[in-house]
Amino acid sequence: MHPEQLLGSRRVYEGHVVSLRVDDVELPSGHRQAREIVEHRGAVAVVPLIEDDVLLVRQFRRAAGRALLEIPAGSMEAGEEPEACLQRELAEEIGMRAGQVTYMVSFYPSPGFLTEVVHVYVAHKLSPHRLDGEEEDLEVVRLPVVRARALVGQEIVDAKSIIGLLLAQTAEGTS
Amino acid sequence: MHPEQLLGSRRVYEGHVVSLRVDDVELPSGHRQAREIVEHRGAVAVVPLIEDDVLLVRQFRRAAGRALLEIPAGSMEAGEEPEACLQRELAEEIGMRAGQVTYMVSFYPSPGFLTEVVHVYVAHKLSPHRLDGEEEDLEVVRLPVVRARALVGQEIVDAKSIIGLLLAQTAEGTS
Repeated sequence: MHPEQLLGSRRVYEGHVVSLRVDDVELPSGHRQAREIVEHRGAVAVVPLIEDDVLLVRQFRRAAGRALLEIPAGSMEAGEEPEACLQRELAEEIGMRAGQVTYMVSFYPSPGFLTEVVHVYVAHKLSPHRLDGEEEDLEVVRLPVVRARALVGQEIVDAKSIIGLLLAQTAEGTS
Repeated sequence: MHPEQLLGSRRVYEGHVVSLRVDDVELPSGHRQAREIVEHRGAVAVVPLIEDDVLLVRQFRRAAGRALLEIPAGSMEAGEEPEACLQRELAEEIGMRAGQVTYMVSFYPSPGFLTEVVHVYVAHKLSPHRLDGEEEDLEVVRLPVVRARALVGQEIVDAKSIIGLLLAQTAEGTS
């Protein structure tokens, strides 16, 4: 199950959020193929719960061309541990700190070409904790979890939010 | 909820699977920011069911650096409709054609920087239908759906497979 041989690799772009390389591989058939690989250093996403409610953020997403309603999330900084990243994102995006954090799952958003892994958590025992930091243009939305789940496929249409809300349902029995 | 003004855009790479551009935007604060946007033409993923079993594919994923167990999926070709793409991928990857196809959801794998949308379906009434086509180095794995769901977070760790298996559970009552 490792049917490719790497013949060479060419770096195309080194960016802040993503980098891009093209790997030249040889398949068992002898055919050569170029594989475009988008490199990303990974992210953390978190389902912040207050009783039966979840705190979501609405923000404009240029890649989607519209505003999406999502669970809080963000890229890990160099050397940052997932739980430290989680607390930083909670503070920056919804002005909260979590007293209890439970790991749920890690997933590849698009494993055909993207190295990004997203680590998904549930957060409980939230308390106000506003970080002075970069301005983020987003709106915090508090909704019953059952209502948020009903928005999957409507305004909630990103992988981490769908996976987080569906698994929190199972793990926490909040439905 | 459209807090950015586009000042300019620079195309960095035009590829087969992805392209990359960098947008120069101005935030309401007056700060300028470069936004890296990975462009992808979209994909289709499908949960193929035979009674209480699902057909999965195991393949090496260079971006993940290992083999993953996934539902069948693939990028849409230029001008291709999602359901035509679905039938093509079923034929190429598991040698089947679906007599009944049900749409479940469309999602953004990583909306912070990636334009890709994945359309997810359930397929029933499968019949053998092998396409002569490109060799794909993958292994077909038939598993009870409940067993596949138990592998979420283990060998099943990509967004489309997790979302497809969790939503098929709800929609089809297969658990």
